[in-house]
Amino acid sequence: MDNKLVREDENLDDLQLKGLMLIQKKDGFKFGVDAVLLSHFANVKKKHRVIDLCTGTGIIPFLLEGKYSPKDILGIEIQDEFVDMANRSATLNKTHNISFISEDLKNLKALKNIDKADVITVNPPYKLNNAGIVNPSDKLAIARHEIMCNLENVIEASRILLKDNGRIYMVHRPERLADIITLMRKYKIEPKRIQMVHPKLGKAPNIVLVEGQRDGGAFLKWDAPLYVYNEDGSISDEINKIYGRDVNE
Amino acid sequence: MDNKLVREDENLDDLQLKGLMLIQKKDGFKFGVDAVLLSHFANVKKKHRVIDLCTGTGIIPFLLEGKYSPKDILGIEIQDEFVDMANRSATLNKTHNISFISEDLKNLKALKNIDKADVITVNPPYKLNNAGIVNPSDKLAIARHEIMCNLENVIEASRILLKDNGRIYMVHRPERLADIITLMRKYKIEPKRIQMVHPKLGKAPNIVLVEGQRDGGAFLKWDAPLYVYNEDGSISDEINKIYGRDVNE
Repeated sequence: MDNKLVREDENLDDLQLKGLMLIQKKDGFKFGVDAVLLSHFANVKKKHRVIDLCTGTGIIPFLLEGKYSPKDILGIEIQDEFVDMANRSATLNKTHNISFISEDLKNLKALKNIDKADVITVNPPYKLNNAGIVNPSDKLAIARHEIMCNLENVIEASRILLKDNGRIYMVHRPERLADIITLMRKYKIEPKRIQMVHPKLGKAPNIVLVEGQRDGGAFLKWDAPLYVYNEDGSISDEINKIYGRDVNE
Repeated sequence: MDNKLVREDENLDDLQLKGLMLIQKKDGFKFGVDAVLLSHFANVKKKHRVIDLCTGTGIIPFLLEGKYSPKDILGIEIQDEFVDMANRSATLNKTHNISFISEDLKNLKALKNIDKADVITVNPPYKLNNAGIVNPSDKLAIARHEIMCNLENVIEASRILLKDNGRIYMVHRPERLADIITLMRKYKIEPKRIQMVHPKLGKAPNIVLVEGQRDGGAFLKWDAPLYVYNEDGSISDEINKIYGRDVNE
């Protein structure tokens, strides 16, 4: 392993998946359960070209590579510093089918020149950009709040970047589901499947996973929900399985 | 009790709620868990005027009366035979604040002459009218399929019938949620609260309850889900409580 690729303010974290590693800032954005759930929810095949929007450090492309080995994966990210980190992770992992570029999803003209994808994945900034609350120069804030791009920008970009009948897989917050559905339909991406994730049994959902299809027909399927924790506070078997951990059955 | 009001092909069913009774056909549409869940989900106050759309035999108005005693309730139904049954139930129950009229929700001019409501409740026909599958002269089919009115008719009518900031409470099927949300927003009724109902733990939801507000601001709250049956097939405590049955805790 070439540790010169990892800087002093960075960690090299083991994804516990086919030896894949990820460079993350010691005090910056760390991937979480959202990315793991999204990579599990997405239907990706070996023949697919995948584009991951708002890719950040590239966690979702590396998880998808570890799980599905698709033909190629392009990660798009607006913050150059993340693109650089993600490309160094690709170099370390010797994953030659994964690349990362810096682009603004609002630059529709640039997007039209990118080869179209069978599958888009996206874990977008999920908080509304309520003026005054966040510092727009803060890299963490840009990853979490709709400062540089909002939900509509993501869905409009997906319309452009998807092949006909291609699928988008998004992880978001349930309180934004009305916006997600309305915007998908505005850009003729039909919501086809939803899975709710609850912190535990009997609690309201706090994560939603949505599959949409470009020009798909109207039929919405609901998956059985996921529960992250058991009643006793331990992590549920289904979440442990998604993380690839051994579960005694 | 004046049994002359009940015909030979009808039963008089006890709602187990403050002595209220309901006339139902022996071989016709019987109210189900949808109506009970909707009357529990709705926020109705004593000062409210309520309109129940697609009221059928009037089950929801009588349940709302038993639970909340609102100022008045109007049930609107397109099938004269149901309106007649519902009005006879009101006579039997001596509920002078409840009335039923025959009207077509597509007759927007007529709706504009009706006094506006604080609250609308609706358990609409929830199946798409797939040509050829159902017999349009069948009263059960009209209650269950979008033959005489579809989801858009219901939501457009609600826009007209609601006071400013009035609330609509709808029970429907989760696979139609994208349609419900898109149409509510089209008619400027904002989805404010959703509750999913699952047949049991770990199963996909099969009933959705949606609260919308006329000209409401965008924020969607998710309630904790309901589970109808326990793992052993018995009815859950929460459903028994909604039905007003004693539960040993």
